[in-house]
Amino acid sequence: EEAHEILSKIVCPLLPESIPLADALGRITAHDLYAVCDLPPVPQAAVDGFAVVGSARAQRYQVVERPVDCNNWDLVLHSGQTAYVVTGGVLPQGTQMVIPREQVKVTGGEIVFSGEFVSGSNIKRCGEDFRHGELLVSKGTCLSAGLIGLLAAFGYMEIPVFRCPKVLVLSIGTQIVPYNRIPKTDETRDSNGLLLASLVKRERGRVIAVEVVGKQNTGELLPHLIKLFEQSDLVITTGGTFATTNGEARVLLEKMGAKQLFSEVQLKPGGHVGAAVWNSKPVVLLSGNPAACLVGFELFAVPVLRSLQGLSPVLNRIRARCLNPYSKKRGVRCFLRGHARCSEKGWTIDFLPGQKPSMMRSFLGCNALIDIPPNHPPLREGDEVSIILLDPNAGGLAGYLT
Amino acid sequence: EEAHEILSKIVCPLLPESIPLADALGRITAHDLYAVCDLPPVPQAAVDGFAVVGSARAQRYQVVERPVDCNNWDLVLHSGQTAYVVTGGVLPQGTQMVIPREQVKVTGGEIVFSGEFVSGSNIKRCGEDFRHGELLVSKGTCLSAGLIGLLAAFGYMEIPVFRCPKVLVLSIGTQIVPYNRIPKTDETRDSNGLLLASLVKRERGRVIAVEVVGKQNTGELLPHLIKLFEQSDLVITTGGTFATTNGEARVLLEKMGAKQLFSEVQLKPGGHVGAAVWNSKPVVLLSGNPAACLVGFELFAVPVLRSLQGLSPVLNRIRARCLNPYSKKRGVRCFLRGHARCSEKGWTIDFLPGQKPSMMRSFLGCNALIDIPPNHPPLREGDEVSIILLDPNAGGLAGYLT
Repeated sequence: EEAHEILSKIVCPLLPESIPLADALGRITAHDLYAVCDLPPVPQAAVDGFAVVGSARAQRYQVVERPVDCNNWDLVLHSGQTAYVVTGGVLPQGTQMVIPREQVKVTGGEIVFSGEFVSGSNIKRCGEDFRHGELLVSKGTCLSAGLIGLLAAFGYMEIPVFRCPKVLVLSIGTQIVPYNRIPKTDETRDSNGLLLASLVKRERGRVIAVEVVGKQNTGELLPHLIKLFEQSDLVITTGGTFATTNGEARVLLEKMGAKQLFSEVQLKPGGHVGAAVWNSKPVVLLSGNPAACLVGFELFAVPVLRSLQGLSPVLNRIRARCLNPYSKKRGVRCFLRGHARCSEKGWTIDFLPGQKPSMMRSFLGCNALIDIPPNHPPLREGDEVSIILLDPNAGGLAGYLT
Repeated sequence: EEAHEILSKIVCPLLPESIPLADALGRITAHDLYAVCDLPPVPQAAVDGFAVVGSARAQRYQVVERPVDCNNWDLVLHSGQTAYVVTGGVLPQGTQMVIPREQVKVTGGEIVFSGEFVSGSNIKRCGEDFRHGELLVSKGTCLSAGLIGLLAAFGYMEIPVFRCPKVLVLSIGTQIVPYNRIPKTDETRDSNGLLLASLVKRERGRVIAVEVVGKQNTGELLPHLIKLFEQSDLVITTGGTFATTNGEARVLLEKMGAKQLFSEVQLKPGGHVGAAVWNSKPVVLLSGNPAACLVGFELFAVPVLRSLQGLSPVLNRIRARCLNPYSKKRGVRCFLRGHARCSEKGWTIDFLPGQKPSMMRSFLGCNALIDIPPNHPPLREGDEVSIILLDPNAGGLAGYLT
C-alpha cells in the first residue's frame, strides 16, 4: 500500500489524443461528451408501417400518391390519409400515429385498420431519447460498443481519449536468451519478456520493444537503451535483482542515472520488486522468477498502467471462500495464485498447485491472486480470504462463472 | 432456443492458422499443446546466491576461481567449495544447496553462512515444474498472458489458433446514410453499423466492411455485395425488415440467392430477427431499431461468432435480484437492458431507463440483458431474474464489482 502511494505520486495520465470513433472500442475518454442535438432530431417512425392522420373511429385511410423523389418531410398528411414509413424514417407532417405494417390490410389505394387509434403511438418524438446538451459519456469511461453506437448517432467522428502507454520491457540477466533462440545448457529462455509484453497488451499498453539485456558490451548498450527509454512512458524490467548493491538491474539503472523510489516490499513472491524514476518516467523492476514477475506486474505495474490511461488504479478485490486448505510458512504477506469462480452462492477460490516463485505451473487456470496477511494461521476449507481478480483473458468473464 | 439450434447446425469452427506466439493473446488454441521437454531442463538456482557442496557443520566455503568464459555447467564443485549463481541460472555440477545472497557474508575468497544446511534447498530440480509430454493447454483455450509466458518457456514460436471470423456488416434502408455524413432532414445516420462493427471486434471478429445499402442502383450493388459476401465468414445485416415479403432485407437476400432459415422469433425487442445461408455462410438479419439490433446481436450473432472460433456458444447466465420494480406488458418473452453488479452478497440488477426498441438511452450503463419469460407478472424489488452478462468492455469485470 505504501509502495502504491509512492508510485501514484509520480504517475499522471498521458496527454489525450483524438482518434476515429471507429477505432475507439475499449479506449478511455479524456473529456466529457455531450448530446450535440436532440435525438431523434425530428419525429421518426418507431416501426415499419403507415403514418396516419385519423380519429378514434376511422378504419380506412387513403394512401397518398406522392411525386417521385418527394420525401416524407415534404409531404403533408390530411385527415384520413396515410403514407408508408420505415423504422427510423422521418414522418410526413401532421402524422398522429404509425400503424405497424402487420396490423393493416392493404387493398388497392387504401389500408384497413381495425385496431385502436392511440395518438402518438409508434412515433419517436423529437428529443424523446436524448435532449440537446445532455451528458452522454463522462471523462474516464471505457468505451463499449453500445456507447460507440450512441456517439455515432450524434455524428461524432473523432473522440478524445487518453493515449495508450508505450512500454519498454527489459529482461535482465547474463544467462538469458530470447525465447525464440535455442538456449545452450547454461542459458535460459526469456519467457518473462513475452509474459510481460502480453500482460501490457491486456492492459491496453503498446509494447515498443522486448529487449534481453544479457552479455552485451555496456558501451554499445547504454546509448541504445537511452533511445528506447526516451520513447517509453513506462519501463518494466525483470530479473537482475535491484535490491542488492551489485545486482545487474541496479548497476544498469544507476548507469542510466535513474533515481530509486523503493527497492524491496514485504511480500512473497517477488519481495525484490522495486521502482525508480528516469527523466520523470516510471520504471518498475520485477523479480526474475516467473511467478514473482507475474505477481509483481499485477500488484505494481497494473496500477501504473491504469493511472497513465486516466483509470482508477484500484485493484478488483472481493472476498471468497476457500475450496481447499493451504498452509503457508509464517512470515510476510503472501499473494498466492488461485482459480476463482462465481456463482449465485458467491465467490469461491482454489489454491493452484505449484506456488514456488520459480514455478510456472500455477499459471494454469490462474485468474486471481489470494492476499494472505503476514503470520496468518493455516487456511481451512470454507475460510474467507480477500482475492484480487485478474481477468486474465481480458473478457474472460465466462472463466469466473461455474 | 430453437433458433439457436437451427443456427448451430450450419456453423462450424473455421480452419486453424498458425500465428507467432507474441501475437496470440486472447486467441483460441486449435490443438492441444504439450511440454516438449522437462522444465527446467537442467537443475537451476531458485534465488541469486551461492551454490555449495557442504554438510550440516560447514559454515565457510571457498569461492572457486574459474577460468574466463567457464560457465557453471562446465564447473564441478567439491566439498567446501562454492560459486555465485543467479536466479534461473544453471548450477555447477555437484551443487547440493543454494544459499541466498543475503544470508552470507563474503570475505575475500570465502563466504560465511551460519544458517542450516538443507540439501536441495533453493534448487529447481530438473522437471520440477513440468514433465516432458505433459498437457499444457488444451484445444479451445483462450490464451492468457500467463499461458503465453509458459509456452515461451518451452520455446513455442508459432501457435495453431482458430482463425478470427471475417464479418461483413450491412445497414439496410433507403433513408440511412453513413454516420460520418451530415444527414438531410429525411435521412438518418447509420449508428447501427458502427455499433455492430464494435460488437464484432469485441468478439474478436475482423470487420471487412460496414456498408450502407440505401438508394444504390441494384445493378451495380449486387456484384459488389457478392464480392464482399465471398470474403466473409459471417454477414450481419440491420434494418430493412426480413420478416415481410417486400422488406428490403428480404428482397436483397432473395436476389443474392440466400436460403432462409427463420425470419421471426417470439421475443422483444427485435422479434424480426432472422437467419439465412448464402453459399453455406451464415447471415444473421437484425432489426433496424438500435436496442433491438443490440439485443439481437447478443442473442444470435454472439453464439455464431463464438462457434466459428471453436468456443462454446453458450451465453453467460446468472440469477440476480432486482433493485427496482418493472412492469412489462403481458406478451412475448422480453430481453431488457440492465446494469448488473456483483458483490459478496450475490448479483443485483437495475432496469435501465429508456427500454423502447427505438431508444439508445439504455446503452448507458448496460452490461447485462434481463430475460423475462412470456406473460410474466410485474417484477418487484427483490425478485429473482435470469440475466445474461454481456461483458461490454471485454475485460470490464471491474464494471460488475460494487
